[in-house]
Amino acid sequence: MPVNAKKVFEGVIFDVYQWEQKMYDGSMQTFERLDRADTVDILATTKQGKMLIQRQSQPDQEESFLCLIGGRVEDDEDALEGAKREMLEETGYGSQEWAFLLSYRPTRKIRWDMHVYVARQCEKQSEQNLDPGERIEVMEVSFDEFIELVDSGKMNRIHDEIRSRCIRAKYHRPSYEAFYKEIFGTSP
Amino acid sequence: MPVNAKKVFEGVIFDVYQWEQKMYDGSMQTFERLDRADTVDILATTKQGKMLIQRQSQPDQEESFLCLIGGRVEDDEDALEGAKREMLEETGYGSQEWAFLLSYRPTRKIRWDMHVYVARQCEKQSEQNLDPGERIEVMEVSFDEFIELVDSGKMNRIHDEIRSRCIRAKYHRPSYEAFYKEIFGTSP
Repeated sequence: MPVNAKKVFEGVIFDVYQWEQKMYDGSMQTFERLDRADTVDILATTKQGKMLIQRQSQPDQEESFLCLIGGRVEDDEDALEGAKREMLEETGYGSQEWAFLLSYRPTRKIRWDMHVYVARQCEKQSEQNLDPGERIEVMEVSFDEFIELVDSGKMNRIHDEIRSRCIRAKYHRPSYEAFYKEIFGTSP
Repeated sequence: MPVNAKKVFEGVIFDVYQWEQKMYDGSMQTFERLDRADTVDILATTKQGKMLIQRQSQPDQEESFLCLIGGRVEDDEDALEGAKREMLEETGYGSQEWAFLLSYRPTRKIRWDMHVYVARQCEKQSEQNLDPGERIEVMEVSFDEFIELVDSGKMNRIHDEIRSRCIRAKYHRPSYEAFYKEIFGTSP
């Protein structure tokens, strides 16, 4: 955010900033950018070699949808802490083996980073602890099923770079092996 | 946007809406969603079998970036009209052969549709007519070069679904031929 940007609105999710920007011809225009909490997505694997995904319902949506485990990072935690908390709340699973995979800014007009973590060998530790605005069913899928779900567009809110890796993995064996190893930590 | 949503802020680009949403346990929470103008991207081809892309600079960005031709749809035009206007303004090119390719909503929390059009056999009709906040250099690339630029992450603001088709085209010959035909209207 530019140093002269001023917060002109503070919302529940989004804060709006504006500043006066000099154009190429010397004239001034009001530019606008948003700020929101970063989010985390988790590629979680089980000791049995499956991946954990979720079917989520939200109170303002008629239909449920498939997505990765994940959510919003709180002000008082870093991204990895947020990932661990969200996984425990949404699924009851924990992991002893976390790895950072990548970060991504979906759009230039919003200061919003999506961080993707891998959580390997997850084990059930507790019951779900859901917000009153969440309904979540945890599902196990194989690596190949996950790739198909992403490639066919059946997974919601999938990070652009994760989708790219899934499609490369589907059609290109070396990419399949590399992506598998990133997620599971071992060769397929 | 839900019928009971109220506009709580009107920005230069983004409007903010909020409403009271009933949770699964009967409690209420303030939900928030944004509204912004739809945008168009154009896959433009020339009579010589090249694709047109642009190198763009913006006054609040230090570095220029490659992206598709395109921009914001104005209130008084539909998406196709916006695409035709943006292409003429940004490049001076026009086309007699427009085709709708796909629409996409990048994030659930913003009412914002991205529409992708194909403009075939484009010809230079006039000079560029740029806003004071734009610097645009028009570039010609081959279909294969375009796929490489997208797959390698060198194109900015690329629609998720366009990136997916580029990666499939790179690794899967039938997808290459299908995507080429969608863009050029003929077989490769």
